[in-house]
Amino acid sequence: MAPQTASQTYPLPASLPLDSGEALDGVTIAYETYGELAADRSNAILVCHALTGDQYLASPHPMTGKPGWWERMVGPGKPIDTDRFHVICANVLGSCMGSTGPASLAADGKPYAMRFPVITIRDMVRGLVALLDGLEIRQLHAVVGGSMGGMQALSMAANFPTRAARVLAIATTARHSAQNIAFHEVGRQAIMADPAWHGGDYYAQETRPVAGLSVARMAAHITYLSESGLTEKFGRRLQDRPDGTAGAKSFGFDADFQVESYLRYQGSGFTRRFDANSYLYITRAMDYFDLAEEHGGKLGNAFAGSPARFCLVSFDSDWLYPTAESRHVVHALNASGAPVSFVELSAPFGHDSFLLDVPALDRVVKGFLE
Amino acid sequence: MAPQTASQTYPLPASLPLDSGEALDGVTIAYETYGELAADRSNAILVCHALTGDQYLASPHPMTGKPGWWERMVGPGKPIDTDRFHVICANVLGSCMGSTGPASLAADGKPYAMRFPVITIRDMVRGLVALLDGLEIRQLHAVVGGSMGGMQALSMAANFPTRAARVLAIATTARHSAQNIAFHEVGRQAIMADPAWHGGDYYAQETRPVAGLSVARMAAHITYLSESGLTEKFGRRLQDRPDGTAGAKSFGFDADFQVESYLRYQGSGFTRRFDANSYLYITRAMDYFDLAEEHGGKLGNAFAGSPARFCLVSFDSDWLYPTAESRHVVHALNASGAPVSFVELSAPFGHDSFLLDVPALDRVVKGFLE
Repeated sequence: MAPQTASQTYPLPASLPLDSGEALDGVTIAYETYGELAADRSNAILVCHALTGDQYLASPHPMTGKPGWWERMVGPGKPIDTDRFHVICANVLGSCMGSTGPASLAADGKPYAMRFPVITIRDMVRGLVALLDGLEIRQLHAVVGGSMGGMQALSMAANFPTRAARVLAIATTARHSAQNIAFHEVGRQAIMADPAWHGGDYYAQETRPVAGLSVARMAAHITYLSESGLTEKFGRRLQDRPDGTAGAKSFGFDADFQVESYLRYQGSGFTRRFDANSYLYITRAMDYFDLAEEHGGKLGNAFAGSPARFCLVSFDSDWLYPTAESRHVVHALNASGAPVSFVELSAPFGHDSFLLDVPALDRVVKGFLE
Repeated sequence: MAPQTASQTYPLPASLPLDSGEALDGVTIAYETYGELAADRSNAILVCHALTGDQYLASPHPMTGKPGWWERMVGPGKPIDTDRFHVICANVLGSCMGSTGPASLAADGKPYAMRFPVITIRDMVRGLVALLDGLEIRQLHAVVGGSMGGMQALSMAANFPTRAARVLAIATTARHSAQNIAFHEVGRQAIMADPAWHGGDYYAQETRPVAGLSVARMAAHITYLSESGLTEKFGRRLQDRPDGTAGAKSFGFDADFQVESYLRYQGSGFTRRFDANSYLYITRAMDYFDLAEEHGGKLGNAFAGSPARFCLVSFDSDWLYPTAESRHVVHALNASGAPVSFVELSAPFGHDSFLLDVPALDRVVKGFLE
């Protein structure tokens, strides 16, 4: 699980202050860029990634070999056009793909593990802003993100209002709901119940908490898909048997149904690329996220000083961060007088729609970044 | 976890044939009754329990001391009136409260554990019908059930059409959806990932797979509640600290939010009264449930021979078995010409509404049983 990354890295020149009151020394941010930075440094777009995402936005993931997670959106001539824009994507603080997180070495030469401080979405954004400082980018053409990436985009608008001229937040929310927290708590308990977790000190052990992390991913994965999408994709169809014969109920506990097999595959694949402690820390940051609370309990206040233009996008089949959550942000932006456009797109894929083939999203993204 | 039950038990006089093709010898069914059986044996109502329910319908649970799970519905003068009806509730085959299940001793004197055969909802119903035979009850006044209890009620109507004059199925479905299966699979994987599960052979061990079972219960519990119910009950409210001071974010991994604390409590409480292997077997039975598939792929066929009257009830906030699933059953009953009434009730509690204070449900139940 050592970060096998060819990314560029930026060691922060100063200690990073955190919402907890602590400060973190020696932070490194790993990032990828696509497209040329204009001489006047005005054409940069920062794309923020989701919970289990990374900086490999439009280039192959070095561990899985899979294409970048938003290749369909980012590239020459694509909606986020790298012929025009300099696109930056950085691994968030607390993650495990080259930026400082619980698997990183602390000053004593040992992994932080659970000594890593609990961070927030705003702390992640502080790391991103420090990177922008390092890259001498005073104002982004846009900050863009889906899901947790959208939380970062909104947090940047609220806390660093001059750093982005445009804010595009997709399939996201300004606060985690009780149900959102509940699902994350199930995942954390699954990880921490795994004896191989060892209180977080598994880095020097022979085994890692793959079983717990896999269960966490399986539970979360269900929330990323719509009920109707699952029905369409899998229904109650049975898995073909290993010998190639058509599926039949085994009257056992093998993966009889295709949906079981799919979930197991999602769970185990995830454990090969993600650190369990990072999963704990990042889900915690998301659960703590409540942009109104940070700003005197009123979401409108969060955006009061913002000169940016906003665009919010939700999906009608997203039950993790449903349209009502985006509307809530839009109403707050209206109240604070910010220019905002909002669209609910119809797509069958649930929360994951922002990553998948939804041509209407391409048009919205392209149009907003003009 | 030895069944500490004061229930009556009925040892089946014959081997129980199962859908798997196997047969189970020496099956015992544990049950409770409330109210007097009429001389002509015509006033019996069978109430079927849900996944983690039991026969303690209207009497205290012997392990937890808590009131029966449907005390609000069953008793003298209540909607299921024990002054008029003889009410029977039996622990289902595969469970762990006195009826034969994986924790029971096999012929070799050792617990079945995973040697227990995989059973189906129809197999559970076969066990219930065998009990009715033993009690010399040829036709029930009604069979009643919510959730998995409703599946049993529908299965009895389909497979033993003369055994119940009335069929009341609440908050249920005629088939498990891909999403239903997915959530159950997460729970099973959580249990089987727990090293204390020991391939199911934990009965003689010092520890049991409580961590895995607890995670399974937490994940399932979220599906029993509505998003808005969770928000109303917990929102993002923080837990008071142990010293009594008002809650604050701990910037750690304790249960900061009330919803986290609640879920942990639900998970750990459950492990004190339920057997992990029973959870595996019963969830499997539910996932296998597809009443149409059993009847040539057409749900109408399932009810073609039924002389019973039906009543279906759904709740508008139930996203586990949403109203569409009940409607699907109603359409099939209409197609087969069976008399059926259907109502979607408005209640904020999600799937669990059938167990909670919904006066409209009381009226429907009382009216249908007249």
